[in-house]
Amino acid sequence: MINQQYKSMLQGKSVIRTLSEFATARGQEIGYDNVYDYTLGNPSVAVAGEYDEAIIEMHKTMSSRDLHGYSPSLGNTSAREAVAASLKKRFGIPYETKHIFMTSGAAGALAHALRAVTEPGDTVLTFAPYFSEYNEYVRWTGANLRVVPANTIDFQINIDEFEKMLTKDVTAVLINTPNNPSGVVYSEETMRTLTDILREKQVEYGHDIFLISDEPYREIAFDGKNVPYPSKYYDNTLSCYSFSKSLSLPGERIGYVAVHPNSTDADVMAVIMTQISRGIGHNCPSSSVQLAVMKCLELTSDMSVYEKNMNLIYDKLVELGFEVVRPGGTFYIFPKALEEDAVAFCNKALKYDLIFVPSDGFGVKGYFRMAYCIDTDKVIRSLPVLEKFVRNEYKK
Amino acid sequence: MINQQYKSMLQGKSVIRTLSEFATARGQEIGYDNVYDYTLGNPSVAVAGEYDEAIIEMHKTMSSRDLHGYSPSLGNTSAREAVAASLKKRFGIPYETKHIFMTSGAAGALAHALRAVTEPGDTVLTFAPYFSEYNEYVRWTGANLRVVPANTIDFQINIDEFEKMLTKDVTAVLINTPNNPSGVVYSEETMRTLTDILREKQVEYGHDIFLISDEPYREIAFDGKNVPYPSKYYDNTLSCYSFSKSLSLPGERIGYVAVHPNSTDADVMAVIMTQISRGIGHNCPSSSVQLAVMKCLELTSDMSVYEKNMNLIYDKLVELGFEVVRPGGTFYIFPKALEEDAVAFCNKALKYDLIFVPSDGFGVKGYFRMAYCIDTDKVIRSLPVLEKFVRNEYKK
Repeated sequence: MINQQYKSMLQGKSVIRTLSEFATARGQEIGYDNVYDYTLGNPSVAVAGEYDEAIIEMHKTMSSRDLHGYSPSLGNTSAREAVAASLKKRFGIPYETKHIFMTSGAAGALAHALRAVTEPGDTVLTFAPYFSEYNEYVRWTGANLRVVPANTIDFQINIDEFEKMLTKDVTAVLINTPNNPSGVVYSEETMRTLTDILREKQVEYGHDIFLISDEPYREIAFDGKNVPYPSKYYDNTLSCYSFSKSLSLPGERIGYVAVHPNSTDADVMAVIMTQISRGIGHNCPSSSVQLAVMKCLELTSDMSVYEKNMNLIYDKLVELGFEVVRPGGTFYIFPKALEEDAVAFCNKALKYDLIFVPSDGFGVKGYFRMAYCIDTDKVIRSLPVLEKFVRNEYKK
Repeated sequence: MINQQYKSMLQGKSVIRTLSEFATARGQEIGYDNVYDYTLGNPSVAVAGEYDEAIIEMHKTMSSRDLHGYSPSLGNTSAREAVAASLKKRFGIPYETKHIFMTSGAAGALAHALRAVTEPGDTVLTFAPYFSEYNEYVRWTGANLRVVPANTIDFQINIDEFEKMLTKDVTAVLINTPNNPSGVVYSEETMRTLTDILREKQVEYGHDIFLISDEPYREIAFDGKNVPYPSKYYDNTLSCYSFSKSLSLPGERIGYVAVHPNSTDADVMAVIMTQISRGIGHNCPSSSVQLAVMKCLELTSDMSVYEKNMNLIYDKLVELGFEVVRPGGTFYIFPKALEEDAVAFCNKALKYDLIFVPSDGFGVKGYFRMAYCIDTDKVIRSLPVLEKFVRNEYKK
């Protein structure tokens, strides 16, 4: 019989997807160039050329079985070796091949990490604002997601609320820095305070509390700054990476989990994940994609476009009087709406073909997200429209 | 805390994998050419050249965003259209794009199909001999797998036992034809009898019973025969396909579910599957792989190698007095062992560097599986060794 829970989910269609479909439909009416579609985190910048070259070369020269044959269930061994070596070199943590588990993007990484370190009924904490898909990611593991309210001053962590909510049933804490949707990078201080509390509570409760770190935006940082790497601050960390954003490969579904070498059961954690794969129907990312990203581990697409876009938008928002925290990375910005109801605000913007995502789905009220992984030309053309929208609707 | 259920699974390592690792280790000692490794279903024949050409061409000419951008969660629309059109043409069933859901191989297809049509606590029936991973695939949906004992006469279906076991709690029946491990193709008569019973029981119980058809070997049929297509016999069928075997692409993780247009909720079934993806962390197969297989939908690798291997092995087995059903397809054969305990039989074979998989994991006792997707040259060299093994151990 048809599963009624999954069927009933059809009603709860994602707001982002609905807006994005609206943008596409509107584009067919007036030309997509005239729709200022800030909805989707689909990178606009081309993949690093080395990736396509690697794919072409491998398909010309490698044997079919070496290129297209089954990967081991942990992922291609050379790819895992290369990832471990690169992380070790960059972050000074002694990763070995056995700590790397190749996945289908960050969604696959989180599906494995969450199941590996929680039992059904456990609580997973995350921090608002947060990527709304975490609800589904956590719910179907059998654990419960609870959301620490936002610190709207600077979108770092609300430490007081976190301490209150970090009860004994919490076995994993899920963070995302640089953050979708706020664009904020958690500071060294945030990382220290957060992990000090985790260490203390591990001792107090007598059980592991894992830090699951969702890091698809790790390489997209602005102002030449480094993103504090969560695994450096806490041993029980599972670092969930995706090449979707840094290499502009979201459709290829490629990422990994890096298990901290000092975490509990570090030596078997990746093998535990292969058991999880059997149950959820995941059997490695594409073999050829694994081999190709291995050759581009320390490359990125041209990220300067996102920084340029951010600066243009941020300056305009400030000029127009928006309350907004300057993003430290990603390709998102998260200003306060000009009225209490962000949905009403975004609906008014639609009349100007400005398509923003209201913050309600991210666990905060009264803000909106702009995803500026679009052409700079369109960003520039959207700014006078944004100004017109604000002046017409809010500064009459 | 580490999930204890998944951790405890580490003890139950797959027999096939253990044997395959033994083969690799032995190969390092005496040269892999001298190890007659019949363990793994990893195709030996090269991918159809058109596939590699399509990949190279696309990576040379397509825009990064069209090639590597996010697929819709149902899969690439052109790929789904092409699959629907091809199936419609070949099998005369009016599939449309909305009936096709792109997946990461058959494992991904089964993960979605099983969850879509069962509720936790339901029973799923399958038929021995069966692919042992079905245990894990079903268990983690929350449903229970029950196995109809084998019909060892011809490895068609044991109809009497099936009728007894098809109780009201059964909401899905999982079949695999051509069959791993027996190599047998279910006959027209089997398909008719099976589906007549399903139709009757649907009426009697007043609920849907879905037929989930695992079809990675659909295109590997011998003696110029066609494989009866399960969806032709029963409306409530979900056809789970993989390109792993037919195109020799197991590492690329590409397949689909084709929902029968006349099945219950056919119009929303694929959309229900997108909701399942959110929970299990599956977000489409690789975008470029989807686009490339679309250009090879009616091609296969050179399947004649498998038929040649089968004939060589089958004739030798018969000559040596084995009881064996002649495979109608796949690259497996499933002879009766020469002693009651198939594990003991396979252990003795190991001394001759003949590596077979005992049948116990496939839900039948006293048989063994040979996967002959290996070079014909090695098959030929293995035959005198097989003869020596049999004469030394069983015909002294």
